[in-house]
Amino acid sequence: MSMKNVPDIVVGRLPLYLRALSFLGEEGRQVTSSQELGQKLGISPAQIRKDLSHFGEFGKQGTGYDIKYLSEQLRRILKVTEEREVALVGAGDLGRALIHYEGFAGKGFRIALVFDSNPQKIGQTIGPFEVLDSESIETIVADRGIEMAIVAVPASAAQDVVDALVRAGVRAILNYAPITVKVPAGVQVQYIDPVIHLQKMTYYL
Amino acid sequence: MSMKNVPDIVVGRLPLYLRALSFLGEEGRQVTSSQELGQKLGISPAQIRKDLSHFGEFGKQGTGYDIKYLSEQLRRILKVTEEREVALVGAGDLGRALIHYEGFAGKGFRIALVFDSNPQKIGQTIGPFEVLDSESIETIVADRGIEMAIVAVPASAAQDVVDALVRAGVRAILNYAPITVKVPAGVQVQYIDPVIHLQKMTYYL
Repeated sequence: MSMKNVPDIVVGRLPLYLRALSFLGEEGRQVTSSQELGQKLGISPAQIRKDLSHFGEFGKQGTGYDIKYLSEQLRRILKVTEEREVALVGAGDLGRALIHYEGFAGKGFRIALVFDSNPQKIGQTIGPFEVLDSESIETIVADRGIEMAIVAVPASAAQDVVDALVRAGVRAILNYAPITVKVPAGVQVQYIDPVIHLQKMTYYL
Repeated sequence: MSMKNVPDIVVGRLPLYLRALSFLGEEGRQVTSSQELGQKLGISPAQIRKDLSHFGEFGKQGTGYDIKYLSEQLRRILKVTEEREVALVGAGDLGRALIHYEGFAGKGFRIALVFDSNPQKIGQTIGPFEVLDSESIETIVADRGIEMAIVAVPASAAQDVVDALVRAGVRAILNYAPITVKVPAGVQVQYIDPVIHLQKMTYYL
């Protein structure tokens, strides 16, 4: 089994497979097929089989995939078998929504620190967190060895926040601000933008 | 130019191209290339050329793409040349964040109605909106002829909200709740899930 040079686009589909498996598992299902997964995800069964074949042999011809086993393998491949600490920057409406988000549980992530630059928010308690001063991102995030962060600040503040996170050693950033940010090589950024998803649907209206 | 039978995955990439063009335009650029777009998006230049070729001839060999022209064409193809009204259900933290989101402007969407089922929120004013009772989704959304909606409610409430939206005539739903929802044929659903984006990055850590 070689995991070298797997195309990014293939890696990017693995979380979708894992989520689909998770939903099936919650429905009490034990076995699925590339046909069923493909139908749920709008991806061809052949593509799913090809994607998974980069990482090994997970299903049997005619019997399909064991949902629990394939989920475990995908979690291992994606390195989310244990919970990773994530720093959240931005304690506004979106930050609060993320703090209370029900979807992180059991998926490999846990918000561990919350920062904001607004003096009225610093020191406030939101859920289990005391909001920390964004000025301390560099020291606190570095001390804790946190590698992942979520940026939920206005567009105008996003680049400065990202720069501080990068200096603190963060190597993977999920950015909700509607702006592309610059990062050095070796730091990953993903964007969440509702516009992209809405525009994917208007074509078909 | 035939637009029949364009694969969903191709259509799904057009908003990414449009966003990349928009960022380049904001930087004052006038021309780009499939190489440059590809580099920004992690998609091969050949794939970008092939995707666009489904819809016509937009660039010239050697001179690249005119950013303004290609953007206009993509907006036309995606049917976002004018602003569409979107109903938002859920006036919690996430709903408030969406009401104040800076990223919708000029991208083809405008939140037009806000609903919540919480009696303490109904009647409240958030930004320019009075929060309406979710019980009235079916009548008000149908009366206004709104086709798109954003669901920002807890997972436990999402299916009921989606059912009401579908009965109101909504045909495209962006769902933030961490649950798959069932919809009849002809209704599209997109999901926004930070876990998917975080898991796309952990592989590389």
